[in-house]
Amino acid sequence: MQLVRLAVDCMGGDQGPAMTLPACKSFLASHPQAHLVLVGRADVLAQAKAWPRCTLVEATEVVEMHDPVELALRRKKDSSMRVAISQLKPDEQGRASADACVSAGNTGALMALSRYLLKTVDGIDRPAIASALPNQTGGSTTVLDLGANVDCSAEHLLQFAVMGSALVAAISEKAAPTVGLLNVGEEVIKGSEVIKQAGELLRAAHAAGQINFHGNVEGNDIFKGTTDIVVCDGFVGNVALKAAEGLAGMIGAQLKAEFGASWLSKLSALAALPVLRRFKHRVDHRRFNGAALLGLRGLVFKSHGSADAFSFECALTRAYEAARHDLLDGVHARVAATLAAAPQ
Amino acid sequence: MQLVRLAVDCMGGDQGPAMTLPACKSFLASHPQAHLVLVGRADVLAQAKAWPRCTLVEATEVVEMHDPVELALRRKKDSSMRVAISQLKPDEQGRASADACVSAGNTGALMALSRYLLKTVDGIDRPAIASALPNQTGGSTTVLDLGANVDCSAEHLLQFAVMGSALVAAISEKAAPTVGLLNVGEEVIKGSEVIKQAGELLRAAHAAGQINFHGNVEGNDIFKGTTDIVVCDGFVGNVALKAAEGLAGMIGAQLKAEFGASWLSKLSALAALPVLRRFKHRVDHRRFNGAALLGLRGLVFKSHGSADAFSFECALTRAYEAARHDLLDGVHARVAATLAAAPQ
Repeated sequence: MQLVRLAVDCMGGDQGPAMTLPACKSFLASHPQAHLVLVGRADVLAQAKAWPRCTLVEATEVVEMHDPVELALRRKKDSSMRVAISQLKPDEQGRASADACVSAGNTGALMALSRYLLKTVDGIDRPAIASALPNQTGGSTTVLDLGANVDCSAEHLLQFAVMGSALVAAISEKAAPTVGLLNVGEEVIKGSEVIKQAGELLRAAHAAGQINFHGNVEGNDIFKGTTDIVVCDGFVGNVALKAAEGLAGMIGAQLKAEFGASWLSKLSALAALPVLRRFKHRVDHRRFNGAALLGLRGLVFKSHGSADAFSFECALTRAYEAARHDLLDGVHARVAATLAAAPQ
Repeated sequence: MQLVRLAVDCMGGDQGPAMTLPACKSFLASHPQAHLVLVGRADVLAQAKAWPRCTLVEATEVVEMHDPVELALRRKKDSSMRVAISQLKPDEQGRASADACVSAGNTGALMALSRYLLKTVDGIDRPAIASALPNQTGGSTTVLDLGANVDCSAEHLLQFAVMGSALVAAISEKAAPTVGLLNVGEEVIKGSEVIKQAGELLRAAHAAGQINFHGNVEGNDIFKGTTDIVVCDGFVGNVALKAAEGLAGMIGAQLKAEFGASWLSKLSALAALPVLRRFKHRVDHRRFNGAALLGLRGLVFKSHGSADAFSFECALTRAYEAARHDLLDGVHARVAATLAAAPQ
């Protein structure tokens, strides 16, 4: 089996190399088929010199978390983020230096640089951000778009459905993952004009065998796991994701507060510790870190900026699995098939 | 002090009178200043004949949970829901039979009937659904719209901000509650075109002293309690609310599953019981039941259809507090002041 090569922006994320490098080291140890292209400042990369299956690529600049997109795009031409994405560009012989790229940096900059350097797949107007969220079945629901596109047309939502299906088919090896259209009710007549039109396009694509469309779903279906994929515009997806994060944070804080409220409750927390640990593991969002930027001519994965090393390693694993299962070819093929069947 | 009179649709909700009547009985016992106008079928109302501070009003029909809006509006002219809302209409002397109305019935029908029977306040195009959600400060965040309007203009979002301010000012007695505009980032340049325009209108209304506008907020701010009020279009609000409900359901189920997994974990649950009970109380969404339909010439409150008696009683209490604090006059006054100041 061939090595799977991941380009890693070692400078990205709130903690930067102090978080990315330990994650890379641990990832290499557990993935003997992986090769990492580590991108960052020379002084940072020095510690990885003796690591196995590694290429070190220097980049003198860093895109900061609050840098405007323009700055990342037009000024910082030697940023670790930019150089990491560039590893995905094929050379004259059609060979790229990496199969996928992972960064925990600034989302806006990552999306803009990826679009600029890699371009979109034929038939895709806008890339989308897709992430897996845990659901009640014990599996996960892949939701897209999570914030790349705040105003979407019905056609964009169809493109998201096709790309999301390719992602889940590649990673989960479900041949025909189900797709739900996020709406305010299950009935076909519900929703905004764009959503109703999108519903028609999705039903037509289902009839043509391009996607496995379940129908409308509601916000709670994301966590019920009603469908494998949920499509929505980036505004709605971003708000829903952050609302869920906010609620999870509140519940966690309150559970902690109640168990820490008195000596007696602390004692009962001690008794409940193994249970609480298992519970924490089950709802641990860090395990689901690693959002795919879909629709580009290259596999780019975004880690949460606040990721710790464990969480960043999960993002590396997602990117690795996507590359190993030829997600890029899957997206190309599915999009091409849908386009070929679309009425001209 | 004058009695506060609530009209109650006794037939609404998944459980109907088996849930509403026990709630009404308990509510009357704890609210000596309340008078209830109970609306429903004669056989159902019979059990309330001897109750104090009650008027019984018969209605022969029932709007079912899945009835189309058209049916409720044009055919079931003697439905308990319709008759209950009608109690808010002033007679020739300008006196109504009730100060507020509460129903756990079909949301679409309740909104349509309320609009038809009561009309909107001058200056309000569309009523909105506002509900309080618990937040990390121990208080609550009032979010609107939660699903009445799936396509909103910037002007509608301004109207929601004004009405939400009136609601929170009336119920919480905060004179100048803070308003956040739900967006995908805090920066002014973020969001869709409608959101950016709404931001301008809200800043202008803030400058004119009509609302206390904080700025953009994100999904997680709802549960952080960053602002007292969060405004958004009904599509986004509905998805965010239901996503949060879905996540809370998942977390609750997993916590239960982990504690029930073995004899040992059951034992530790027993030890942790008082803590888990307090935790459950803190995050109990039933306490926050009772959404206000704002912008109508009458106070209509919607209880969750799946409410139990405890939860429905909370909705009665919210309606009671709103009526007691003259929410209707508050909305009228705030909307009129904003309109008077708006550029023509």
